[in-house]
Amino acid sequence: MTDRAAATAEAILAAARTAFGESGYDRATIRGIAAAAGVDPALVHHYFGTKADLYARAIALPVSPSEVIATVFTGDRSGLGERLTRFFFGVWERPEGREPFLAMLRGAFGGNERGTAGFRQFVVHGMLAPVAAEVGGDDAPIRVELALAHLVGIAVLRYVVAVEPVATLPVDELVRRLAPHIQRHLAG
Amino acid sequence: MTDRAAATAEAILAAARTAFGESGYDRATIRGIAAAAGVDPALVHHYFGTKADLYARAIALPVSPSEVIATVFTGDRSGLGERLTRFFFGVWERPEGREPFLAMLRGAFGGNERGTAGFRQFVVHGMLAPVAAEVGGDDAPIRVELALAHLVGIAVLRYVVAVEPVATLPVDELVRRLAPHIQRHLAG
Repeated sequence: MTDRAAATAEAILAAARTAFGESGYDRATIRGIAAAAGVDPALVHHYFGTKADLYARAIALPVSPSEVIATVFTGDRSGLGERLTRFFFGVWERPEGREPFLAMLRGAFGGNERGTAGFRQFVVHGMLAPVAAEVGGDDAPIRVELALAHLVGIAVLRYVVAVEPVATLPVDELVRRLAPHIQRHLAG
Repeated sequence: MTDRAAATAEAILAAARTAFGESGYDRATIRGIAAAAGVDPALVHHYFGTKADLYARAIALPVSPSEVIATVFTGDRSGLGERLTRFFFGVWERPEGREPFLAMLRGAFGGNERGTAGFRQFVVHGMLAPVAAEVGGDDAPIRVELALAHLVGIAVLRYVVAVEPVATLPVDELVRRLAPHIQRHLAG
Protein backbone atom coordinates (compact mmCIF):
# COMPACT_ATOMS: atom_id res chain seq x y z
CA MET A 1 0.00 0.00 0.00
CA THR A 2 1.39 3.43 -0.92
CA ASP A 3 1.66 6.15 1.72
CA ARG A 4 -1.29 7.89 0.14
CA ALA A 5 -3.43 4.72 0.13
CA ALA A 6 -2.49 4.04 3.75
CA ALA A 7 -3.51 7.60 4.71
CA THR A 8 -6.84 7.13 2.91
CA ALA A 9 -7.47 3.79 4.67
CA GLU A 10 -6.64 5.43 8.01
CA ALA A 11 -9.05 8.30 7.30
CA ILE A 12 -11.81 5.82 6.44
CA LEU A 13 -11.20 3.83 9.65
CA ALA A 14 -11.25 7.02 11.75
CA ALA A 15 -14.53 8.08 10.14
CA ALA A 16 -15.93 4.58 10.68
CA ARG A 17 -15.04 4.60 14.39
CA THR A 18 -16.77 7.96 14.82
CA ALA A 19 -19.86 6.89 12.87
CA PHE A 20 -20.22 3.51 14.62
CA GLY A 21 -19.61 5.14 17.99
CA GLU A 22 -22.18 7.89 17.44
CA SER A 23 -24.87 6.07 15.45
CA GLY A 24 -24.35 2.42 16.36
CA TYR A 25 -23.78 -0.38 13.87
CA ASP A 26 -27.24 -0.46 12.32
CA ARG A 27 -27.65 3.27 11.63
CA ALA A 28 -24.11 4.00 10.42
CA THR A 29 -23.78 3.75 6.63
CA ILE A 30 -20.89 3.17 4.25
CA ARG A 31 -22.13 6.21 2.31
CA GLY A 32 -21.97 8.43 5.40
CA ILE A 33 -18.57 7.10 6.43
CA ALA A 34 -17.22 7.66 2.91
CA ALA A 35 -18.54 11.24 2.90
CA ALA A 36 -16.94 11.96 6.28
CA ALA A 37 -13.62 10.59 5.00
CA GLY A 38 -13.93 12.52 1.72
CA VAL A 39 -13.81 9.43 -0.51
CA ASP A 40 -16.11 7.48 -2.80
CA PRO A 41 -18.19 4.70 -1.14
CA ALA A 42 -16.74 2.23 -3.67
CA LEU A 43 -13.30 2.91 -2.22
CA VAL A 44 -14.53 1.97 1.26
CA HIS A 45 -15.77 -1.38 -0.08
CA HIS A 46 -12.51 -1.81 -1.99
CA TYR A 47 -10.37 -1.30 1.11
CA PHE A 48 -12.55 -2.92 3.79
CA GLY A 49 -15.21 -5.15 2.21
CA THR A 50 -18.71 -5.16 3.74
CA LYS A 51 -20.05 -2.90 6.50
CA ALA A 52 -19.61 -5.83 8.91
CA ASP A 53 -15.98 -6.22 7.83
CA LEU A 54 -15.39 -2.49 8.31
CA TYR A 55 -16.92 -2.61 11.80
CA ALA A 56 -14.75 -5.60 12.70
CA ARG A 57 -11.64 -3.66 11.59
CA ALA A 58 -12.77 -0.49 13.38
CA ILE A 59 -13.04 -2.30 16.74
CA ALA A 60 -9.86 -4.32 16.01
CA LEU A 61 -11.48 -7.76 15.82
CA PRO A 62 -8.93 -10.32 14.64
CA VAL A 63 -11.28 -11.76 11.99
CA SER A 64 -13.53 -10.34 9.31
CA PRO A 65 -17.08 -11.69 8.98
CA SER A 66 -16.50 -12.34 5.26
CA GLU A 67 -13.49 -14.48 6.15
CA VAL A 68 -15.58 -16.52 8.62
CA ILE A 69 -18.27 -17.14 6.00
CA ALA A 70 -15.73 -18.04 3.31
CA THR A 71 -13.93 -20.48 5.61
CA VAL A 72 -16.97 -22.16 7.11
CA PHE A 73 -19.10 -22.44 3.97
CA THR A 74 -16.40 -23.64 1.61
CA GLY A 75 -16.73 -27.42 1.38
CA ASP A 76 -19.17 -30.13 2.32
CA ARG A 77 -22.26 -29.19 4.31
CA SER A 78 -21.56 -32.13 6.61
CA GLY A 79 -18.30 -30.43 7.65
CA LEU A 80 -19.91 -27.12 8.69
CA GLY A 81 -19.79 -27.89 12.41
CA GLU A 82 -16.18 -28.95 12.40
CA ARG A 83 -15.01 -26.01 10.29
CA LEU A 84 -16.83 -23.43 12.44
CA THR A 85 -15.60 -25.02 15.69
CA ARG A 86 -12.01 -25.19 14.44
CA PHE A 87 -12.15 -21.61 13.19
CA PHE A 88 -13.50 -20.43 16.55
CA PHE A 89 -10.64 -21.97 18.52
CA GLY A 90 -8.13 -20.80 15.91
CA VAL A 91 -9.09 -17.27 16.93
CA TRP A 92 -9.68 -17.76 20.66
CA GLU A 93 -6.56 -19.80 21.42
CA ARG A 94 -4.42 -16.73 20.72
CA PRO A 95 -4.64 -14.16 23.56
CA GLU A 96 -4.64 -11.30 21.03
CA GLY A 97 -7.37 -13.14 19.10
CA ARG A 98 -9.76 -13.47 22.03
CA GLU A 99 -9.06 -10.15 23.77
CA PRO A 100 -11.36 -7.94 21.63
CA PHE A 101 -14.24 -10.36 22.19
CA LEU A 102 -13.48 -10.57 25.91
CA ALA A 103 -13.43 -6.78 26.07
CA MET A 104 -16.94 -6.68 24.58
CA LEU A 105 -18.23 -9.32 27.01
CA ARG A 106 -16.56 -7.49 29.90
CA GLY A 107 -18.38 -4.33 28.83
CA ALA A 108 -21.70 -6.18 28.66
CA PHE A 109 -21.19 -7.64 32.15
CA GLY A 110 -20.13 -4.22 33.40
CA GLY A 111 -23.39 -2.67 32.18
CA ASN A 112 -21.82 -0.59 29.38
CA GLU A 113 -25.13 -0.51 27.50
CA ARG A 114 -23.98 1.95 24.81
CA GLY A 115 -20.97 -0.14 23.76
CA THR A 116 -22.95 -3.36 24.11
CA ALA A 117 -25.80 -2.10 21.90
CA GLY A 118 -23.43 -1.43 19.00
CA PHE A 119 -21.73 -4.80 19.39
CA ARG A 120 -25.08 -6.58 19.71
CA GLN A 121 -26.28 -5.03 16.41
CA PHE A 122 -23.05 -6.13 14.75
CA VAL A 123 -23.41 -9.69 16.10
CA VAL A 124 -27.05 -9.96 15.02
CA HIS A 125 -26.91 -8.23 11.62
CA GLY A 126 -23.24 -8.47 10.71
CA MET A 127 -22.41 -12.01 11.88
CA LEU A 128 -25.46 -14.17 12.67
CA ALA A 129 -27.67 -12.97 9.78
CA PRO A 130 -25.16 -13.73 6.99
CA VAL A 131 -24.36 -17.12 8.53
CA ALA A 132 -28.11 -17.85 8.89
CA ALA A 133 -28.65 -16.88 5.24
CA GLU A 134 -26.05 -19.47 4.21
CA VAL A 135 -27.44 -22.10 6.58
CA GLY A 136 -31.00 -21.62 5.34
CA GLY A 137 -34.41 -22.42 6.86
CA ASP A 138 -36.97 -20.32 8.75
CA ASP A 139 -35.44 -20.99 12.15
CA ALA A 140 -31.82 -20.56 10.98
CA PRO A 141 -31.32 -17.38 13.09
CA ILE A 142 -32.21 -19.36 16.22
CA ARG A 143 -30.09 -22.37 15.28
CA VAL A 144 -27.05 -20.27 14.41
CA GLU A 145 -27.31 -18.37 17.70
CA LEU A 146 -27.60 -21.61 19.70
CA ALA A 147 -24.43 -22.86 17.98
CA LEU A 148 -22.66 -19.60 18.83
CA ALA A 149 -23.94 -19.83 22.41
CA HIS A 150 -22.34 -23.24 22.82
CA LEU A 151 -18.97 -21.89 21.70
CA VAL A 152 -19.31 -18.75 23.84
CA GLY A 153 -20.08 -20.88 26.90
CA ILE A 154 -16.96 -22.97 26.30
CA ALA A 155 -14.94 -19.77 25.93
CA VAL A 156 -16.25 -18.40 29.25
CA LEU A 157 -15.44 -21.60 31.18
CA ARG A 158 -12.10 -22.23 29.41
CA TYR A 159 -10.56 -18.76 29.11
CA VAL A 160 -12.32 -16.63 31.74
CA VAL A 161 -13.30 -18.78 34.74
CA ALA A 162 -10.69 -21.47 33.84
CA VAL A 163 -12.77 -24.44 35.00
CA GLU A 164 -11.04 -27.82 34.63
CA PRO A 165 -11.06 -30.15 32.75
CA VAL A 166 -12.20 -27.95 29.84
CA ALA A 167 -9.68 -25.20 30.71
CA THR A 168 -6.74 -27.31 29.55
CA LEU A 169 -8.32 -29.86 27.19
CA PRO A 170 -6.41 -30.06 23.87
CA VAL A 171 -8.14 -28.14 21.09
CA ASP A 172 -8.40 -31.26 18.92
CA GLU A 173 -10.39 -33.02 21.60
CA LEU A 174 -12.62 -29.99 22.11
CA VAL A 175 -13.28 -29.86 18.36
CA ARG A 176 -13.98 -33.60 18.22
CA ARG A 177 -16.51 -33.37 21.05
CA LEU A 178 -18.17 -30.10 20.04
CA ALA A 179 -18.30 -30.31 16.24
CA PRO A 180 -21.23 -32.79 16.14
CA HIS A 181 -23.27 -30.47 18.38
CA ILE A 182 -22.47 -27.40 16.29
CA GLN A 183 -23.28 -29.40 13.16
CA ARG A 184 -26.69 -30.48 14.57
CA HIS A 185 -27.54 -26.91 15.50
CA LEU A 186 -26.54 -25.55 12.08
CA ALA A 187 -27.93 -28.32 9.92
CA GLY A 188 -31.24 -28.44 11.86
CA MET B 1 -36.93 -22.63 63.81
CA THR B 2 -36.59 -21.35 67.38
CA ASP B 3 -34.72 -18.10 68.09
CA ARG B 4 -31.88 -20.13 69.48
CA ALA B 5 -31.72 -22.42 66.42
CA ALA B 6 -31.82 -19.39 64.14
CA ALA B 7 -28.94 -17.79 66.07
CA THR B 8 -26.93 -21.02 65.77
CA ALA B 9 -27.59 -21.23 62.03
CA GLU B 10 -26.53 -17.59 61.64
CA ALA B 11 -23.32 -18.24 63.59
CA ILE B 12 -22.52 -21.22 61.36
CA LEU B 13 -23.14 -19.18 58.20
CA ALA B 14 -20.93 -16.36 59.46
CA ALA B 15 -18.14 -18.83 60.28
CA ALA B 16 -18.59 -20.44 56.84
CA ARG B 17 -18.28 -17.09 55.04
CA THR B 18 -15.07 -16.34 56.92
CA ALA B 19 -13.61 -19.80 56.31
CA PHE B 20 -14.51 -19.92 52.59
CA GLY B 21 -13.25 -16.35 52.13
CA GLU B 22 -9.94 -17.00 53.87
CA SER B 23 -9.19 -20.58 52.82
CA GLY B 24 -11.19 -21.02 49.61
CA TYR B 25 -13.74 -23.73 48.98
CA ASP B 26 -11.36 -26.70 48.83
CA ARG B 27 -9.36 -26.03 52.00
CA ALA B 28 -12.24 -24.93 54.23
CA THR B 29 -13.69 -27.82 56.26
CA ILE B 30 -17.01 -28.46 57.97
CA ARG B 31 -15.03 -29.43 61.06
CA GLY B 32 -13.19 -26.07 61.10
CA ILE B 33 -16.36 -24.10 60.46
CA ALA B 34 -18.16 -25.96 63.26
CA ALA B 35 -15.29 -25.26 65.66
CA ALA B 36 -15.31 -21.55 64.77
CA ALA B 37 -19.07 -21.41 65.37
CA GLY B 38 -18.75 -23.39 68.61
CA VAL B 39 -21.02 -26.25 67.51
CA ASP B 40 -20.75 -29.93 66.64
CA PRO B 41 -19.96 -30.74 62.95
CA ALA B 42 -23.08 -32.92 62.86
CA LEU B 43 -25.16 -29.82 63.53
CA VAL B 44 -23.65 -28.08 60.51
CA HIS B 45 -24.69 -31.02 58.32
CA HIS B 46 -28.10 -31.07 59.97
CA TYR B 47 -28.75 -27.39 59.23
CA PHE B 48 -27.03 -27.00 55.86
CA GLY B 49 -26.38 -30.39 54.25
CA THR B 50 -23.11 -30.95 52.40
CA LYS B 51 -20.12 -28.60 52.23
CA ALA B 52 -21.26 -27.62 48.72
CA ASP B 53 -24.74 -26.81 50.04
CA LEU B 54 -23.24 -24.72 52.85
CA TYR B 55 -21.05 -22.81 50.36
CA ALA B 56 -24.09 -22.17 48.15
CA ARG B 57 -25.97 -20.76 51.15
CA ALA B 58 -22.97 -18.71 52.28
CA ILE B 59 -22.73 -16.91 48.92
CA ALA B 60 -26.54 -16.68 48.66
CA LEU B 61 -26.98 -18.94 45.63
CA PRO B 62 -30.68 -19.57 45.01
CA VAL B 63 -30.20 -23.35 44.73
CA SER B 64 -28.40 -26.02 46.69
CA PRO B 65 -26.26 -28.57 44.84
CA SER B 66 -28.09 -31.42 46.59
CA GLU B 67 -31.38 -30.04 45.26
CA VAL B 68 -30.00 -29.94 41.71
CA ILE B 69 -28.83 -33.55 41.95
CA ALA B 70 -32.11 -34.73 43.46
CA THR B 71 -34.17 -32.99 40.79
CA VAL B 72 -32.08 -33.96 37.78
CA PHE B 73 -31.35 -37.57 38.73
CA THR B 74 -34.83 -38.53 39.89
CA GLY B 75 -36.49 -40.31 36.99
CA ASP B 76 -35.60 -41.85 33.67
CA ARG B 77 -32.02 -41.48 32.41
CA SER B 78 -33.42 -40.48 29.02
CA GLY B 79 -34.96 -37.41 30.66
CA LEU B 80 -31.69 -36.10 32.21
CA GLY B 81 -31.15 -33.45 29.54
CA GLU B 82 -34.65 -32.07 29.73
CA ARG B 83 -34.73 -32.01 33.55
CA LEU B 84 -31.35 -30.24 33.82
CA THR B 85 -32.25 -27.72 31.12
CA ARG B 86 -35.62 -26.96 32.69
CA PHE B 87 -34.08 -26.64 36.16
CA PHE B 88 -31.44 -24.24 34.79
CA PHE B 89 -34.00 -21.88 33.28
CA GLY B 90 -36.22 -22.21 36.35
CA VAL B 91 -33.40 -20.54 38.27
CA TRP B 92 -32.11 -18.11 35.62
CA GLU B 93 -35.47 -16.76 34.47
CA ARG B 94 -35.90 -15.06 37.86
CA PRO B 95 -33.67 -11.96 38.21
CA GLU B 96 -32.95 -12.85 41.86
CA GLY B 97 -32.15 -16.40 40.74
CA ARG B 98 -29.53 -15.45 38.16
CA GLU B 99 -27.97 -12.47 39.97
CA PRO B 100 -25.58 -14.42 42.25
CA PHE B 101 -24.26 -16.35 39.23
CA LEU B 102 -23.95 -13.16 37.19
CA ALA B 103 -22.06 -11.55 40.07
CA MET B 104 -19.55 -14.41 40.01
CA LEU B 105 -19.11 -14.18 36.22
CA ARG B 106 -18.78 -10.38 36.48
CA GLY B 107 -16.00 -10.90 39.03
CA ALA B 108 -14.25 -13.41 36.76
CA PHE B 109 -14.42 -11.01 33.80
CA GLY B 110 -13.25 -8.19 36.04
CA GLY B 111 -10.15 -10.15 37.03
CA ASN B 112 -11.17 -10.76 40.67
CA GLU B 113 -8.94 -13.85 40.85
CA ARG B 114 -9.43 -14.42 44.58
CA GLY B 115 -13.21 -14.53 44.41
CA THR B 116 -13.08 -16.48 41.16
CA ALA B 117 -10.73 -19.14 42.58
CA GLY B 118 -13.15 -19.97 45.40
CA PHE B 119 -16.11 -20.10 43.04
CA ARG B 120 -14.15 -22.22 40.54
CA GLN B 121 -13.33 -24.78 43.25
CA PHE B 122 -16.98 -24.88 44.24
CA VAL B 123 -18.08 -25.38 40.62
CA VAL B 124 -15.51 -28.14 40.00
CA HIS B 125 -15.74 -30.05 43.29
CA GLY B 126 -19.11 -29.02 44.65
CA MET B 127 -21.23 -29.08 41.47
CA LEU B 128 -19.59 -30.79 38.49
CA ALA B 129 -17.99 -33.67 40.42
CA PRO B 130 -21.19 -34.90 42.11
CA VAL B 131 -23.11 -34.61 38.82
CA ALA B 132 -20.29 -36.46 37.00
CA ALA B 133 -20.39 -39.20 39.66
CA GLU B 134 -24.11 -39.69 38.96
CA VAL B 135 -23.61 -39.57 35.19
CA GLY B 136 -20.79 -42.11 35.27
CA GLY B 137 -17.97 -42.92 32.84
CA ASP B 138 -14.30 -41.93 32.69
CA ASP B 139 -14.94 -38.79 30.68
CA ALA B 140 -18.01 -37.74 32.70
CA PRO B 141 -16.25 -34.63 34.11
CA ILE B 142 -15.63 -33.39 30.56
CA ARG B 143 -19.13 -34.23 29.36
CA VAL B 144 -20.83 -32.58 32.33
CA GLU B 145 -18.75 -29.42 31.89
CA LEU B 146 -19.56 -29.25 28.15
CA ALA B 147 -23.27 -29.49 29.03
CA LEU B 148 -22.86 -26.71 31.60
CA ALA B 149 -20.92 -24.65 29.03
CA HIS B 150 -23.82 -24.83 26.60
CA LEU B 151 -26.23 -23.52 29.22
CA VAL B 152 -23.78 -20.81 30.37
CA GLY B 153 -23.37 -19.63 26.77
CA ILE B 154 -27.14 -19.34 26.35
CA ALA B 155 -27.31 -17.41 29.62
CA VAL B 156 -24.63 -14.95 28.45
CA LEU B 157 -26.34 -14.27 25.10
CA ARG B 158 -29.90 -14.22 26.54
CA TYR B 159 -29.51 -12.38 29.85
CA VAL B 160 -26.28 -10.36 29.52
CA VAL B 161 -25.71 -9.35 25.89
CA ALA B 162 -29.44 -9.77 25.03
CA VAL B 163 -28.89 -11.05 21.49
CA GLU B 164 -32.08 -11.79 19.54
CA PRO B 165 -33.76 -14.16 18.78
CA VAL B 166 -32.54 -16.13 21.82
CA ALA B 167 -32.99 -13.14 24.17
CA THR B 168 -36.80 -13.40 23.98
CA LEU B 169 -37.40 -17.00 22.91
CA PRO B 170 -40.02 -18.71 25.17
CA VAL B 171 -38.41 -21.00 27.74
CA ASP B 172 -40.36 -24.02 26.45
CA GLU B 173 -38.85 -23.59 23.00
CA LEU B 174 -35.36 -23.15 24.47
CA VAL B 175 -35.81 -26.34 26.48
CA ARG B 176 -37.13 -28.23 23.45
CA ARG B 177 -34.14 -27.20 21.34
CA LEU B 178 -31.43 -27.55 24.00
CA ALA B 179 -32.49 -30.65 25.94
CA PRO B 180 -31.36 -33.14 23.23
CA HIS B 181 -27.89 -31.53 23.21
CA ILE B 182 -27.61 -31.58 26.99
CA GLN B 183 -28.80 -35.18 26.98
CA ARG B 184 -26.16 -36.19 24.40
CA HIS B 185 -23.42 -34.53 26.42
CA LEU B 186 -24.52 -36.16 29.68
CA ALA B 187 -25.37 -39.59 28.33
CA GLY B 188 -22.17 -39.74 26.24
